[in-house]
Amino acid sequence: MFINAIAHYLPKEEVHNDYFLRNGLTDEWIFQRTGIKTRKKASPSENSHTMGLEAVQLALRELPYPVEEVDLIIGATYSPFDTVGTVAHYVQQNLQIPNAAVVTVSSACSSFVNAVEVVEGYFASGKASKALVVASEHNTAYSNDDDEVAGHLWGDGASAVFISKEAESQDESQILEVFSRGHGHIGRGPEGVYLRPNNGGIGMPFGRDVFTHAIHYMTESTKEVLKKRDLLPSQLRYIIPHQANARIIKNVLKQLEMQPEQAWVNITDCGNTGCASTAIGLSQAYNKIRKNEYAVLTVFGGGYSSGAILIQR
Amino acid sequence: MFINAIAHYLPKEEVHNDYFLRNGLTDEWIFQRTGIKTRKKASPSENSHTMGLEAVQLALRELPYPVEEVDLIIGATYSPFDTVGTVAHYVQQNLQIPNAAVVTVSSACSSFVNAVEVVEGYFASGKASKALVVASEHNTAYSNDDDEVAGHLWGDGASAVFISKEAESQDESQILEVFSRGHGHIGRGPEGVYLRPNNGGIGMPFGRDVFTHAIHYMTESTKEVLKKRDLLPSQLRYIIPHQANARIIKNVLKQLEMQPEQAWVNITDCGNTGCASTAIGLSQAYNKIRKNEYAVLTVFGGGYSSGAILIQR
Repeated sequence: MFINAIAHYLPKEEVHNDYFLRNGLTDEWIFQRTGIKTRKKASPSENSHTMGLEAVQLALRELPYPVEEVDLIIGATYSPFDTVGTVAHYVQQNLQIPNAAVVTVSSACSSFVNAVEVVEGYFASGKASKALVVASEHNTAYSNDDDEVAGHLWGDGASAVFISKEAESQDESQILEVFSRGHGHIGRGPEGVYLRPNNGGIGMPFGRDVFTHAIHYMTESTKEVLKKRDLLPSQLRYIIPHQANARIIKNVLKQLEMQPEQAWVNITDCGNTGCASTAIGLSQAYNKIRKNEYAVLTVFGGGYSSGAILIQR
Repeated sequence: MFINAIAHYLPKEEVHNDYFLRNGLTDEWIFQRTGIKTRKKASPSENSHTMGLEAVQLALRELPYPVEEVDLIIGATYSPFDTVGTVAHYVQQNLQIPNAAVVTVSSACSSFVNAVEVVEGYFASGKASKALVVASEHNTAYSNDDDEVAGHLWGDGASAVFISKEAESQDESQILEVFSRGHGHIGRGPEGVYLRPNNGGIGMPFGRDVFTHAIHYMTESTKEVLKKRDLLPSQLRYIIPHQANARIIKNVLKQLEMQPEQAWVNITDCGNTGCASTAIGLSQAYNKIRKNEYAVLTVFGGGYSSGAILIQR
């Protein structure tokens, strides 16, 4: 599979740590504990659909074929504006893509990795050959600013990636491996983090459990995809980890014996953008990765789920 | 692909048409317009997760292999209890399935068909060989009893299907064809029906547009899967259509020149159970289909999406 075009969208409004003094949390305390300084917030007229579309429209500029040739649209989100007319359907409507299978998936912060794995499956079954994956999260639609435990963690944003089965142009990255695994049966499983749309929104009652499992499984998922290509962590240009907490990222680097400069970090400016975080990170880092260099996206999601994607530029 | 086991779960509480006299709608009027007499409603302790698990536990009784061998769990719902710890993760937790990819999908009332298509993809890519699909809808968590246009349409329920790549026992049905297509670009697309979790719940502002497109695309999807096996509608034991409105079903039968007794109808007792409707229908009809007979599931979902599955018993 090849990446034909990628872009991301972040809302303009910033919410700095100082805002959460309302909960007795200082800028210094939040930054030390999470690595976050500020995060983006969707405007009242934005939602996970509109942000996803913004990212797609930016990616379109680089697309080496007419968008009408897309035959698969996969949305990825756990913070949906609409679960019936999903973000994938909204994109199909706005781009007038006539012949595509269209579905939106969630495995929480792993959703983007699962979306790419679903693309791999449609390609393997011969039912699609050009896919558009849209990862979009509107966390602030469901989070609670007064939540002292987790209210300060969340940011909004989206990313869009066009993926083809065969190479479509010279300057493309190849997706070499995709791996995912559900861990609902591990630790606090589906209760560690939740988004219950009509029963409390986003909450994180078992943050410590999420923290330790995230480190373990993001490390293991990275090893899993590297092993398949006989690669070592030291050979990666970048690891682009899910951005839930800078201390998780630091621990994953330590486990993999990687250097700090190998990690792509956007949590400082974006907060936790859910399943969009690694997809935004890949978009941000994309032109810094040189021809033939490798990058890994590695994720852990509430639920739980984990996964990784190995890319060669 | 082979169906190893199937079961469904319907909540005990019934809500008869008489309840909607509150909106000035008589039993006779509702039945004439929709074909609905009564529908099931989840109890306060139930939700899309618990109903999905109930269906799975019933299907387990017939499963010809240990459930631990399942390596893929796909949830299907547009009325989620939790979008982070999804219904698929909840099932993984309760059944302690250790090695499975786990993700939940939505394409509205087409979600079950898309879920089976995602299974087909994971099987084709060699990443799974034994899948569990759980379709569960808790419409009444998001619908509005006072909605005069659509409040009387919705019911709750779930269905679970175990599917393997290779045959696992003698008494299995084969899934011969799966087809899906997004129609976000057609008619009222994502606005025809919606479920906006924090912006109005379920609504159907363009029911007429949904109605006409449902008839057209459920008919076309049926033809699509039959064509691939050189079959005619008259050769089907059952067509199991999405149960949104008995008049839609009647029109689809007319278009396909099929007999009324060929249609499996559960809307009379269940209302519109969303993406679970055809999966519940297949479970109900399953033992009435004789060896080698064919059945088609055909769906249309808000968004829009359509699809069909051809099965040989």
